[in-house]
Amino acid sequence: MSFPTDLEIAQNADIRHIREIAEIIGIHRDDLEYYGKYKAKIPLTYIDEEKIKKSKLVLVTAVNPTPAGEGKTTVSVGLCDGLNKIGKKAVAVLREPSLGPVFGIKGGAAGGGYAQVIPMVDINLHFTGDFAAIEKANNLLSALIDNNLQNKKFSLNIDPRTIVWKRVMDMNDRSLRQIVIGLGGSNNGITREEGFNITPASEVMAILCLSKNFEDLKNRLGNIFVGYTFDKKPVFARDLKAEGAMAILLKDAIKPNLVQTLEGNPAILHGGPFANIAQGTNTIIATKTGLSLADYVVTEAGFGADLGAEKFLHIKCHYGKMKPDAYVIVATIRALRYHGGATKKGEYGQPNLQFVKNGIDNLKKHIENAFKFGLKPIIAINHFATDAEDEIEFVKSECEKLGVKAILADEFVHGGEGMRELAEEVVYCAANCGNDFQPLYNVEDTVEHKIETIAKEIYGADAVNYSQKSKAQLKTIYDLGFDKLPVCMAKTQKSLTDDETKIGRPTNFKVTVREFEFAAGAGFIIPILGDMMRMPGLPNVPAAEGMDIDLNGVITGLS
Amino acid sequence: MSFPTDLEIAQNADIRHIREIAEIIGIHRDDLEYYGKYKAKIPLTYIDEEKIKKSKLVLVTAVNPTPAGEGKTTVSVGLCDGLNKIGKKAVAVLREPSLGPVFGIKGGAAGGGYAQVIPMVDINLHFTGDFAAIEKANNLLSALIDNNLQNKKFSLNIDPRTIVWKRVMDMNDRSLRQIVIGLGGSNNGITREEGFNITPASEVMAILCLSKNFEDLKNRLGNIFVGYTFDKKPVFARDLKAEGAMAILLKDAIKPNLVQTLEGNPAILHGGPFANIAQGTNTIIATKTGLSLADYVVTEAGFGADLGAEKFLHIKCHYGKMKPDAYVIVATIRALRYHGGATKKGEYGQPNLQFVKNGIDNLKKHIENAFKFGLKPIIAINHFATDAEDEIEFVKSECEKLGVKAILADEFVHGGEGMRELAEEVVYCAANCGNDFQPLYNVEDTVEHKIETIAKEIYGADAVNYSQKSKAQLKTIYDLGFDKLPVCMAKTQKSLTDDETKIGRPTNFKVTVREFEFAAGAGFIIPILGDMMRMPGLPNVPAAEGMDIDLNGVITGLS
Repeated sequence: MSFPTDLEIAQNADIRHIREIAEIIGIHRDDLEYYGKYKAKIPLTYIDEEKIKKSKLVLVTAVNPTPAGEGKTTVSVGLCDGLNKIGKKAVAVLREPSLGPVFGIKGGAAGGGYAQVIPMVDINLHFTGDFAAIEKANNLLSALIDNNLQNKKFSLNIDPRTIVWKRVMDMNDRSLRQIVIGLGGSNNGITREEGFNITPASEVMAILCLSKNFEDLKNRLGNIFVGYTFDKKPVFARDLKAEGAMAILLKDAIKPNLVQTLEGNPAILHGGPFANIAQGTNTIIATKTGLSLADYVVTEAGFGADLGAEKFLHIKCHYGKMKPDAYVIVATIRALRYHGGATKKGEYGQPNLQFVKNGIDNLKKHIENAFKFGLKPIIAINHFATDAEDEIEFVKSECEKLGVKAILADEFVHGGEGMRELAEEVVYCAANCGNDFQPLYNVEDTVEHKIETIAKEIYGADAVNYSQKSKAQLKTIYDLGFDKLPVCMAKTQKSLTDDETKIGRPTNFKVTVREFEFAAGAGFIIPILGDMMRMPGLPNVPAAEGMDIDLNGVITGLS
Repeated sequence: MSFPTDLEIAQNADIRHIREIAEIIGIHRDDLEYYGKYKAKIPLTYIDEEKIKKSKLVLVTAVNPTPAGEGKTTVSVGLCDGLNKIGKKAVAVLREPSLGPVFGIKGGAAGGGYAQVIPMVDINLHFTGDFAAIEKANNLLSALIDNNLQNKKFSLNIDPRTIVWKRVMDMNDRSLRQIVIGLGGSNNGITREEGFNITPASEVMAILCLSKNFEDLKNRLGNIFVGYTFDKKPVFARDLKAEGAMAILLKDAIKPNLVQTLEGNPAILHGGPFANIAQGTNTIIATKTGLSLADYVVTEAGFGADLGAEKFLHIKCHYGKMKPDAYVIVATIRALRYHGGATKKGEYGQPNLQFVKNGIDNLKKHIENAFKFGLKPIIAINHFATDAEDEIEFVKSECEKLGVKAILADEFVHGGEGMRELAEEVVYCAANCGNDFQPLYNVEDTVEHKIETIAKEIYGADAVNYSQKSKAQLKTIYDLGFDKLPVCMAKTQKSLTDDETKIGRPTNFKVTVREFEFAAGAGFIIPILGDMMRMPGLPNVPAAEGMDIDLNGVITGLS
């Protein structure tokens, strides 16, 4: 019998009513806002600053991933189950998946195998409507901008050529990347260039994830930079009086969502920003809610540690005033093979100790980086059937040489049971490893210094180049007073450099800031180090074609 | 003290947990799918065909409305409360409002004064996500179409110039009416003209509202007409294998939503299609659910009786195999003044018996039309403070001459208490008026005959003209075999004619079919008799500007 699909496992799960899950972490059933029987929103009143100080935050990150990903979500879910297995009160606090890619290739993003969050179909579709709300808030601002262009009576004199705010849609729809709107005459608005991003790329998403409450949310929404007037004055969302209505649209989206793991442990899913042009991790509110309700919060940050963990530590920890107590780096044997030169798909899936030996340096660099932050990492080897014994042993012994433990993570096949050892080590390390997180830069530093610090210390670059365009934009950032914000690096996740073909642990390289963007509302500057895809397309044969629902509402073909 | 705003009344309401409301109509609390404490979805399993036959369906329609509307929703909600007041088990089954207009001028659409459905803010915003789901299903089809254009390997050979399927967004956003997509080179799709409609104008909305179950839904979705191939063959959504994934996106949207009136009586809100290019009334599933759970269902159809009721009777009753047991025409004194010549805003709000005398013919025509369908109407005079005693008496006596009762509806100020008399009459008439609905045309008739029947019998036209364009399109309709579908007339709601300036009861006029559309999925042909707005704009000062939410989540400025 073949191993069941994620959907089959999820549909056969013995799912419990969400009120029972809530009870585990002390949420009274009447305080929950139910979305059906298996999803609920948690009111903001459950945030308890005193309890947060006593709880342990476990950050799960990874080596630079192969195109197939390293399974951070799977490990995070499994680790939560593992911690519960050994008697700890733990919740997983993770991102919500985007709807668009579900109909393309990628499929869902709710873990996999026996380490999933459920109800899987709901989570992968509309869930509790957060993405739809973010989309509406984003697009309301767009409608207000174009309405102001049309409106001669109350005109803000916005120069349509300078508008950087784009509409969003949670759909893989390449035809909307670059469009022209406002055609058809004077009743239909001002003609201008426009484009749609996918909803997770919306700054509103980044803002929601960094907001502490409605007031903070409104402030950040009001600070969104829209463009310039014809006389070169910056225009913000607050100039359009947009932030109140946008915040109203987010009145429920601001509340974290409670679901469960396959093993009936609580999981909180909330927010899902991009990990390149944004911070790539769930909301601050969700993390704080988790820390208020459980003793251990397992959370993750998108892509490898050079992007996800760095941003988690420099952006989220900065705004959320939090720090991790344990730091887990997920590595797969296949990723180490990949970094050792097995870059073809058939190749990195086959045992080959030499490739692993060649590729271990990628992991070592991420280990070193952790120590730079004052954090002692634990390595989780996310176990695949194709991993050879000698490969695993090699990784373990190399880690030991660095004073770090590497532990096999067997959550995919065995759920929490396969995560006991990792869970024990996380508990031990959170208490005894002396972790004391320190950021590598101070937000008060110059923009150039902040970028250089990340490039040199985290990526291992020798220097940072700036394009002509980016130099001009840097001046704008200083002029507008945004230079004291953290930086949110946008580069490929596949390499420590800005060149995705450079695998392993590259040395003797420079990175180039091609251009800058700034998310003045979210509160960061975005140095762009490569082409960033903000609106995916569908493949030749979209997954949508194989999906079906029967007369009883039973779904097939969703992966 | 001034009369409170709708929002103030709604926020001060003594709202009950939705499980208590469900209990009133025999829904077990564990069967509900909650969306917070005050909204829930009802499973499809509560539809009971035997009970439906015994229950009474009350259709609320209106005279041709003034720009301010006649208050059909308010009367419907009040009548539901009134029926409960006199001891009947009644539910209101109504449409869900669209989000877009909330930020423009119109404000919400959940009744008014003391005849509202609550929670008002939620209902007017994302509610239970139905509109967002419809939007996604619509736009998934769009993405699949454009992906197919891009896709040389599995190309359907669609001619991009013939595509009639548009994207939708629930936002008042005039700049999206006419756009060009697919710019920026070969990675970004095929360049073509496109446009966004507002979500209630989506055919997916019309389809959802006419579907009986998932199978019917999928069939209708598959039947959506997309455009033609380069060799002139019709392309349908099923050719793109879109209907399964679209139906999955609607897996929850298909279930009716339970809320409550201010007086704690059950109300079901489900679906909200346009009343010109679509059928303008809630889902068949919701109406059937209401009839399964209560003895009286009060429902409404958009705009005046010439559009809303005609479509309800010819389209919804046809597909839903249902018929009304009572038929209420809402008239306001101000509308009758308007139809009597007081067409300016200041004018129709002032007492003036002569204007009412001049305008009564509009109401009389709608009364005559009801009798043509085999239905004896009851007239509800939706009471305003500015109505004079002699005006009301005049309307009552004119109705009496036609053998029809006109009753004052005082729901806005007095809620159900102000609706006792109307409720008693509805109960009486549903049992004793001998209502036996018969459609005016047979769907098997020719398209021209169906249109002529409506134009002559309902509007009072002498004849129907066809533009050259519409004649050519008519041929296409016969060629594609869509001629046996009901017709869904798209014309102005302000007049019985196709010219909105013709008030009262015009005679000696013709109507012109300018063009045809067809909604092959929803299952009707749309003769277009005027310019149809499918994407509204925002006003000079959008309502959004005055909206706010405080630290505790309390909302202001939403009307």
